[in-house]
Amino acid sequence: MTILIVALGGNALIRFGEEGTTEEQFRNLRVPISQLAELSKDFSLIITHGNGPQVGMLLMQQEATSEVSKRPLQVLVAETQGQIGYMIESTLDEELMRIGLDEERLFITVLTYVKVDPQDPAFHNPTKPIGPAYDEPKPGYVQTAKGWRRVVPSPKPKKIYQWREIKRLMELGGWIVIACGGGGIPVIKEGKRLSGVEAVIDKDLASSKLGEQVGADILLIATDVEKVALHYGKPNQRFLERVSISEAKKYLNEGHFPPGSMGPKVEAVINFLEKGGKRAIITSIEKIKDALEEKAGTHFYVK
Amino acid sequence: MTILIVALGGNALIRFGEEGTTEEQFRNLRVPISQLAELSKDFSLIITHGNGPQVGMLLMQQEATSEVSKRPLQVLVAETQGQIGYMIESTLDEELMRIGLDEERLFITVLTYVKVDPQDPAFHNPTKPIGPAYDEPKPGYVQTAKGWRRVVPSPKPKKIYQWREIKRLMELGGWIVIACGGGGIPVIKEGKRLSGVEAVIDKDLASSKLGEQVGADILLIATDVEKVALHYGKPNQRFLERVSISEAKKYLNEGHFPPGSMGPKVEAVINFLEKGGKRAIITSIEKIKDALEEKAGTHFYVK
Repeated sequence: MTILIVALGGNALIRFGEEGTTEEQFRNLRVPISQLAELSKDFSLIITHGNGPQVGMLLMQQEATSEVSKRPLQVLVAETQGQIGYMIESTLDEELMRIGLDEERLFITVLTYVKVDPQDPAFHNPTKPIGPAYDEPKPGYVQTAKGWRRVVPSPKPKKIYQWREIKRLMELGGWIVIACGGGGIPVIKEGKRLSGVEAVIDKDLASSKLGEQVGADILLIATDVEKVALHYGKPNQRFLERVSISEAKKYLNEGHFPPGSMGPKVEAVINFLEKGGKRAIITSIEKIKDALEEKAGTHFYVK
Repeated sequence: MTILIVALGGNALIRFGEEGTTEEQFRNLRVPISQLAELSKDFSLIITHGNGPQVGMLLMQQEATSEVSKRPLQVLVAETQGQIGYMIESTLDEELMRIGLDEERLFITVLTYVKVDPQDPAFHNPTKPIGPAYDEPKPGYVQTAKGWRRVVPSPKPKKIYQWREIKRLMELGGWIVIACGGGGIPVIKEGKRLSGVEAVIDKDLASSKLGEQVGADILLIATDVEKVALHYGKPNQRFLERVSISEAKKYLNEGHFPPGSMGPKVEAVINFLEKGGKRAIITSIEKIKDALEEKAGTHFYVK
């Protein structure tokens, strides 16, 4: 069966202007997960997700008291995999019940750690905004489009350690896997030692790497716009429907896709298609199912 | 292959008198996990674990600030499954590398939610101490042997939802599964709705229930004493080596095993053996391997 990876963006969990309560996140998840439950009829499904706001909230909470010892960022990432994995899985369980598939499907959240290179230049140049945005600067925060936010290093994913387990589950058929939460827990391997590092991996690049390692057919990145645009937000804005790898590279080099936003998504798509993927799609959370039926989204193809 | 469930007690992660830093927890885990890596040669292994101090720390941190919306207890339990699951899995990975088995084994942390009965009397009688102990009372805290601690309801586990996935992995052979962290995320099922509830399930009872559902052969509960004792801590204290189900029930009814401590462990053992388990062992974290070779521990058998 065709292996489909769906990477859920932040708005699958927290919508613009929301506080990010558990109730809001469960409610928002209904939109993508109801579509994914249906899609499990036609695809072997891997669901990945981000964790920016959630890991930022855990950081703020642990900084608010000295009564409890502080955990390093990679452990907080692991916590968000539990937190968000549970919310996705429980919602998926309900949506599968709704369409009578809960007994047929097996589904599992796989804690995922990801190898990064200790020499990755990202460690000297933190770029990944996490947590809420403030009107005023704080130490260690930088100014972003949304306001002042904490930024941490975002090294490239070199290897998803759990690829063997996930590939095996895909081969069995009928399994839905939730993996690579928050881009995965970043670790460095030195000899026979695995050491977590304080960083957050881009979840789209991690999803692309996982797709390469397990031999996925389609990568769908679900975000807050239905299609990718050239000249985004300008009078000559133009939405893209079908894009070849070479066109995607050209547009990326021309600076159409900003870093920390559409840039890494298009980069993830290019990597995926260059390493064996057949199709890649960028679309909105609401249009996942329509996009797979080619009725929405920007479609990338190998040429 | 024989299916062995090992339930790791709190001292596998945090030793008496420690603050509970990430470094301490990784170091402490080396003791049980090095044994479990070796045991994976002879057993299909399921590892379960508690989360009392860890979930208590998350509660304290989220109560320390009003800047971030508070998550219900069941979501914090899910977070500890991520946190502790990552620490166990990464340590296991290293220990398997050490003995050259990392390529042969597949291992996975399974987020686990557990059905509880909304009518469980535990909801009207919170008994489970979580978090650190204080010298002074606080609102919502009760006095325990270790000091004043927060207590929450501890309903009985009725069904481990992920039993199908875990059973399937055991059937495949060569998989090591980490599951039922902190006793599992407690949920109530009403029609086609799953609702998390604010409670902490006893991890030994959850492990016993999982054993029953997946058809495990052996349940080993690893704690801070090498053997179970009658008249514990008194001049006529006597350690037990072999105990039948009927003897275990008699001792339990006579009040030898206090609630919140050895009581639920012996109850878990009795349930397991009555529902198809072949052997059950209670021993210390240090003696897991010795106990399986019958050189240590209290051994329970069906009669």
